[in-house]
Amino acid sequence: MEYRLEKDTMGEVKVPADKYWGAQTERSRNNFKIGAPASMPKEIIYAFAILKKAAAFANCELGVLPMEKRDLIAQACDEITAGKLDSHFPLVIWQTGSGTQSNMNVNEVIANRAHELAGKKPGEGEKTIHPNDDVNKSQSSNDTFPTAMHIACYKMISDITVPGVQKLRETLHQKAKTLNEVVKIGRTHLMDATPLTLGQEFSGYASQLDHGLNALRNTLKHLSELALGGTAVGTGLNAPAGYDVLVAKKIAEFTGLPFVTAPNKFEALAAHDALVESHGALKQLAVSLNKIANDIRLLASGPRSGIGEIIIPANEPGSSIMPGKVNPTQSEALTMVCTQVMGNDVTISVGGTQGHFELNVFKPVMAANFLQSARLIGDACVSFNDNCAAGIEPNIPVIEKLVNNSLMLVTALNTKIGYYKAAEIAQAAHKNGTTLKEEAVRMGYVTAEQYDEWVKPEKMTGLF
Amino acid sequence: MEYRLEKDTMGEVKVPADKYWGAQTERSRNNFKIGAPASMPKEIIYAFAILKKAAAFANCELGVLPMEKRDLIAQACDEITAGKLDSHFPLVIWQTGSGTQSNMNVNEVIANRAHELAGKKPGEGEKTIHPNDDVNKSQSSNDTFPTAMHIACYKMISDITVPGVQKLRETLHQKAKTLNEVVKIGRTHLMDATPLTLGQEFSGYASQLDHGLNALRNTLKHLSELALGGTAVGTGLNAPAGYDVLVAKKIAEFTGLPFVTAPNKFEALAAHDALVESHGALKQLAVSLNKIANDIRLLASGPRSGIGEIIIPANEPGSSIMPGKVNPTQSEALTMVCTQVMGNDVTISVGGTQGHFELNVFKPVMAANFLQSARLIGDACVSFNDNCAAGIEPNIPVIEKLVNNSLMLVTALNTKIGYYKAAEIAQAAHKNGTTLKEEAVRMGYVTAEQYDEWVKPEKMTGLF
Amino acid sequence: MEYRLEKDTMGEVKVPADKYWGAQTERSRNNFKIGAPASMPKEIIYAFAILKKAAAFANCELGVLPMEKRDLIAQACDEITAGKLDSHFPLVIWQTGSGTQSNMNVNEVIANRAHELAGKKPGEGEKTIHPNDDVNKSQSSNDTFPTAMHIACYKMISDITVPGVQKLRETLHQKAKTLNEVVKIGRTHLMDATPLTLGQEFSGYASQLDHGLNALRNTLKHLSELALGGTAVGTGLNAPAGYDVLVAKKIAEFTGLPFVTAPNKFEALAAHDALVESHGALKQLAVSLNKIANDIRLLASGPRSGIGEIIIPANEPGSSIMPGKVNPTQSEALTMVCTQVMGNDVTISVGGTQGHFELNVFKPVMAANFLQSARLIGDACVSFNDNCAAGIEPNIPVIEKLVNNSLMLVTALNTKIGYYKAAEIAQAAHKNGTTLKEEAVRMGYVTAEQYDEWVKPEKMTGLF
Amino acid sequence: MEYRLEKDTMGEVKVPADKYWGAQTERSRNNFKIGAPASMPKEIIYAFAILKKAAAFANCELGVLPMEKRDLIAQACDEITAGKLDSHFPLVIWQTGSGTQSNMNVNEVIANRAHELAGKKPGEGEKTIHPNDDVNKSQSSNDTFPTAMHIACYKMISDITVPGVQKLRETLHQKAKTLNEVVKIGRTHLMDATPLTLGQEFSGYASQLDHGLNALRNTLKHLSELALGGTAVGTGLNAPAGYDVLVAKKIAEFTGLPFVTAPNKFEALAAHDALVESHGALKQLAVSLNKIANDIRLLASGPRSGIGEIIIPANEPGSSIMPGKVNPTQSEALTMVCTQVMGNDVTISVGGTQGHFELNVFKPVMAANFLQSARLIGDACVSFNDNCAAGIEPNIPVIEKLVNNSLMLVTALNTKIGYYKAAEIAQAAHKNGTTLKEEAVRMGYVTAEQYDEWVKPEKMTGLF
Repeated sequence: MEYRLEKDTMGEVKVPADKYWGAQTERSRNNFKIGAPASMPKEIIYAFAILKKAAAFANCELGVLPMEKRDLIAQACDEITAGKLDSHFPLVIWQTGSGTQSNMNVNEVIANRAHELAGKKPGEGEKTIHPNDDVNKSQSSNDTFPTAMHIACYKMISDITVPGVQKLRETLHQKAKTLNEVVKIGRTHLMDATPLTLGQEFSGYASQLDHGLNALRNTLKHLSELALGGTAVGTGLNAPAGYDVLVAKKIAEFTGLPFVTAPNKFEALAAHDALVESHGALKQLAVSLNKIANDIRLLASGPRSGIGEIIIPANEPGSSIMPGKVNPTQSEALTMVCTQVMGNDVTISVGGTQGHFELNVFKPVMAANFLQSARLIGDACVSFNDNCAAGIEPNIPVIEKLVNNSLMLVTALNTKIGYYKAAEIAQAAHKNGTTLKEEAVRMGYVTAEQYDEWVKPEKMTGLF
Repeated sequence: MEYRLEKDTMGEVKVPADKYWGAQTERSRNNFKIGAPASMPKEIIYAFAILKKAAAFANCELGVLPMEKRDLIAQACDEITAGKLDSHFPLVIWQTGSGTQSNMNVNEVIANRAHELAGKKPGEGEKTIHPNDDVNKSQSSNDTFPTAMHIACYKMISDITVPGVQKLRETLHQKAKTLNEVVKIGRTHLMDATPLTLGQEFSGYASQLDHGLNALRNTLKHLSELALGGTAVGTGLNAPAGYDVLVAKKIAEFTGLPFVTAPNKFEALAAHDALVESHGALKQLAVSLNKIANDIRLLASGPRSGIGEIIIPANEPGSSIMPGKVNPTQSEALTMVCTQVMGNDVTISVGGTQGHFELNVFKPVMAANFLQSARLIGDACVSFNDNCAAGIEPNIPVIEKLVNNSLMLVTALNTKIGYYKAAEIAQAAHKNGTTLKEEAVRMGYVTAEQYDEWVKPEKMTGLF
Repeated sequence: MEYRLEKDTMGEVKVPADKYWGAQTERSRNNFKIGAPASMPKEIIYAFAILKKAAAFANCELGVLPMEKRDLIAQACDEITAGKLDSHFPLVIWQTGSGTQSNMNVNEVIANRAHELAGKKPGEGEKTIHPNDDVNKSQSSNDTFPTAMHIACYKMISDITVPGVQKLRETLHQKAKTLNEVVKIGRTHLMDATPLTLGQEFSGYASQLDHGLNALRNTLKHLSELALGGTAVGTGLNAPAGYDVLVAKKIAEFTGLPFVTAPNKFEALAAHDALVESHGALKQLAVSLNKIANDIRLLASGPRSGIGEIIIPANEPGSSIMPGKVNPTQSEALTMVCTQVMGNDVTISVGGTQGHFELNVFKPVMAANFLQSARLIGDACVSFNDNCAAGIEPNIPVIEKLVNNSLMLVTALNTKIGYYKAAEIAQAAHKNGTTLKEEAVRMGYVTAEQYDEWVKPEKMTGLF
Repeated sequence: MEYRLEKDTMGEVKVPADKYWGAQTERSRNNFKIGAPASMPKEIIYAFAILKKAAAFANCELGVLPMEKRDLIAQACDEITAGKLDSHFPLVIWQTGSGTQSNMNVNEVIANRAHELAGKKPGEGEKTIHPNDDVNKSQSSNDTFPTAMHIACYKMISDITVPGVQKLRETLHQKAKTLNEVVKIGRTHLMDATPLTLGQEFSGYASQLDHGLNALRNTLKHLSELALGGTAVGTGLNAPAGYDVLVAKKIAEFTGLPFVTAPNKFEALAAHDALVESHGALKQLAVSLNKIANDIRLLASGPRSGIGEIIIPANEPGSSIMPGKVNPTQSEALTMVCTQVMGNDVTISVGGTQGHFELNVFKPVMAANFLQSARLIGDACVSFNDNCAAGIEPNIPVIEKLVNNSLMLVTALNTKIGYYKAAEIAQAAHKNGTTLKEEAVRMGYVTAEQYDEWVKPEKMTGLF
């Protein structure tokens, strides 16, 4: 393998000749061999490229960076966001907790690539663009990493999470409408209860996701606040006046998302409550989705010895030993995702508690867990939607048999004969294996005609 | 001990003669000997009393309950909310997950007390008020318990949590102002960094609480939605038309809080995402408070061998063996509370995932954990505020010594001589135990005059 | 209210005249109004009394405490453990994180009660017994509180948790035997699978609890290590030589439990990994119990429109609106307990991470959560056992119907005709609503005789 | 892209021509586009290859698989474990919760590769080896996936976790010895306390890891139990007699680890408490490591305005804006890992609670989180050890200055003059900024000679 020499304030380091990274990246690569290489999420790298470009534009506009440097930096940044330089970001999540090394990785790659774009060779000649003095101008890791986190997380929520959940929500809402008149038995405590319609059941699911999406949207304002401009400790040292507002405006422009500068930069470096807040909403969505996916697999259970009120699509053979088996695999994938998100919430919260003074140094682990949750919820909702929810069909014969047998239809008699007598009827029917009507008439509490008039499952749903 | 006989649909039960509860309460008391007795939070009982009264009014207004019954019920409810009947609620959190037994406990106590208010003796004569047919009219445990949860939790947040956090927020905000010009060293990674003021540090704390309170308020809309009117499975079976809207209005009236009927009753029984959502915000506050309390004990550490930049009130002897010791005990109480809230969040989230079909049966555990968190955060903020935060004073001599010694003042030279030369100066001073100025001049990078002009801690805070 | 004056190193304080506590307790009571009063678990107070008595004996034996003082202290301690002085311990969990104030509460109560036992009046005359110099001799809060935690937690596990879990384990094991020949359908992914017996199912539950109890027992060695003798920072300053070993021996003697002195006192003060370890096993038991309780409620679901393969005892009316309903309330209580334990595990783990230098100051919250979990698991297992598990009966007609209908019996043909042909048969039977035998014969893969010989549910269980 | 046709029981599917996988893998690939592709941990795939080979040997030995088939299967398995076929395993964690699709992926790759090894072309001619009937013989996903989990997790603990933690433990133990006589101030509540030595402090860290490793080892017996032989529901249907014991023996032989067949197969499929148990110990290690890493960064804080009692290696430039800064980056990486492990524990526990009847369908998420934790702890300990712990040096001048100034040295006088007078001295010295000796003599409680004799920091450590 060929190497070139790069140096930083601690001295020289050999780096692979075909990589743009420099001395600090190489040191980190050697000092943090923890887990798989290059685990730092690409979304963070791309977000860094956006903010570096925005910083170059703001610095130029404020007169502290020449336009030629700005354009070289911007060009390198565009290559990064286009995914062309992915192999030049080898660092892991488990590095310094400020993410300094990934910030320097980005600075070094941009500087070396810009040097090359200016017609020179990395490591040779005077630096066209300096990683610290130019690319990192008016910045610190301490304000860039949190800014990159907010950009990456907000984008993930906008691009993946919300559309995915929304798609599933629409399907559930449609099902609620098309199944609105399918009267079925209700179940509370997993026990037979009074009837409702399958559509009513699904309307609850759609409503859960509506509330969850609303909760998620409520958190975005906090997430839109960017730390950039706070530099090392929040005071904005070495950044020109007006820089913070301007650079946030540039980022908003480049991303199409409503980013603003954080009103309080001290908080923005030292605490990441915005991530805690938004991930709290992701966790709430996980809680909702878990309930929905669980219900659906229970409703589909059987086919012959379970509940079997709905039929879900058979997408794959279900068993390597039991032929002909079909399983609720999409529910399983989705609930596994929910379980992951619940654990990630603890990781993010614990990380969030542990800032000290001017800096929280759990940034990479918080960002990585957040991005995983946001991605998985979005993807899993689409998968569950396309391969399961959209294809759900009611199993009408089963539904009808189960509702008509139910002893809980007796509840309709409460207002006619009182709770105690109604209970007597239900208990007798249960004990004797008879129908409610038989017992009700036998006991003389109602006539057969009254029974038929008063006990109508469809009436008990409140819809008919 | 004297007993009387009470009965329910399963037969007769002996209950203590001096208690208003009935057969179902007694069964639960015997069947669920789990943990300390009477652990069901009183706030839930009081909330039940509010909703029972509201239900009686709504039922009366809708023509299904006579006014005399309404008034007897209301009178008994008022006694409950006044705390006069506390000893009549012996049940535990660890009962049926729908809270049915606590609902019946309330129904039975109201019925028996109303019977007595009507001049009769519990257990004698025909029931003046029937626990199921009158007190529980147009209701089910399945819609009353979640309604009581929302009332109790919303009230706790309004009465205890928000005022407590707000009080501490005001103090921190005031400190941010009065300490705004106290220049001190910044710390990132726990290491010396560039200066800021003590007021700036505290402004970050206040900002965290502002964001946290805002997040909490964002969740209240969901929490204001009441399940009442959904009855057994969400369809509203056996409740009169218009009842759900009316009863929510009554509850809003009785509590002075903006409760409304839940648009989707199926969700409101089967899922408790509103609790998950609001508790997520409580957990976020715990994350913020943990950071703040931690910083304060670190800043106060010493008095001689720690950081010692602030002085906190000495409220009690700190050690049973080391005389004269003063400890950051309020920080300790507050961070213990934060730790509890983080665990409670997991309990509530796990409980929230496990609804099945038309009912979530983790209601009592979710409510109890929520109320504990909301209470503890509010109380602990007041305690921390009154006994610590309000009395914080800067230790000026220490602060000045530490900031003036700092090697990170060199950062002010970045924009004058570049990052690399500045680093050289800092490294030499660190190695030689000298001052930055000595090294800077010795190396010939700046003159003594330039150094004095460029390196001014107060200038580096951006405030002066 | 009448008061007397008590004093500590910070001056005089008024305390209620009828209470034995002194100045430091009173200060704590005033400074920590967080949550309900007297929330510090009584088990901790009693454990303190045991250790104070043990310390008095050890101090006496080592010649640093006169025998008369020892006996007065011991007498007061015995009254505490007998529960006679409960009202003299008003402090809360949310105090200083070392539990110093509860240690002093115990010291003060013992000193004042001993003064009284010596025929004098609290607050009058020279102190017969000094709370610091006598009761706390050779001790610090920093080693007493962790010692009290270990004593209280070990006792709770021995007295409540293990017997409770063991009792349920025996019942499940018995059920596994008595139900060993009840052939039923298996279910994987909640879908019909190949048969097993109900006893086999229950044997899995018993095996889970065996593993869980074993895991719990594995942790007890760590929990048996006592910090006492480490005094303020682990060095044993001010304690006589040999004291640590002797005092642990006394505690072992007084409790009948195998306590020993911790080999490393620095760890024993600064970290509470022993609690983290044992609670990890409690959490594992919660995971197991949750699975068991869930299965049982699903197996009992119905009675007509669920699975209904077992019948559980009807202990109480199940619904305040649906007459005649019986619910799996013991499963609900038990799973709520499991949910609580899972949250408590996070609280304890987070608390455990946050020791600093020579002391962890999350002691009270860790202890309180541990004791709650250990108590609840034990109590809930007994409740679940007595009111549910012991009374479980198989619903033979339902079991037989469901197993004989199952399409997964086809798996018995895999080794005869191959997986693919077997799958074909199952799919055809599912599609056509026919029996496996009909399709198998129709397709010509087996004869009717072969089918009857090869496909026997009872054979598929491996037991017959 | 070129394709070939593969089929399963549901029909034909196009798969990439250059891949060995078959129809079921391809279906899963299309149906579960959740997160990054190929996220199923490679360790699981390799463990599968070991078990497939073991199954082939056991089947052959028991007379149900010809030796030629055995050898072809074994050869393909060896290629997999050698990492030669990594690109043929494209599936994700977020698939069916039984891992059936990864089991089939392995079956298909082995079958197709074996076909090729037999000189034929995948997809052409009659199958030499059938994925279900040969490779999966005597197996089900339901028993293979848990077996693969146990193999992979046990190996990771043996190969990575234990050696990594052990390495760090040795270093800490060595430091405890070499620093055993460095007397320093103790700190409790982050406040100055009585002295101990730096070696004593480090001995506590080593003791924590000893306890943690012991706890981890205690869990391995449970983890060594293999589900294989239980087949579909635990009954062992379609597996030959003696197969379970034999196949576990083969696996033990191939891995050199003490695997045995699980005594109860019903548990082994339906619950994964062994993973919950072992991960509980990993979480305990995380708790310990967090404390250690935190202490070390606090001890190293400064260099001028923190505690600064130790010096840690400077491995990289610490700041992109503050020149010359060195940060405790290894502590940061390690504590981020700890935070991840704490979240993973919740994911694994929640997954563990949710088995239903004969199967737990959270297998992939539980396995993936476990493997991540076990890997990260091992790697991070090595990184922390090599790049930080091994290079820790005491900063003797700072240590001496801080201990000699401490007011808590007064504790040495407790046994001479009593706690109250000692407190008076300390408070006066604190108030007046004087030394303890000055105040002690001034107050007349001790003579200067007595003071010098009684108050010796080194004596207070109990070592000298």
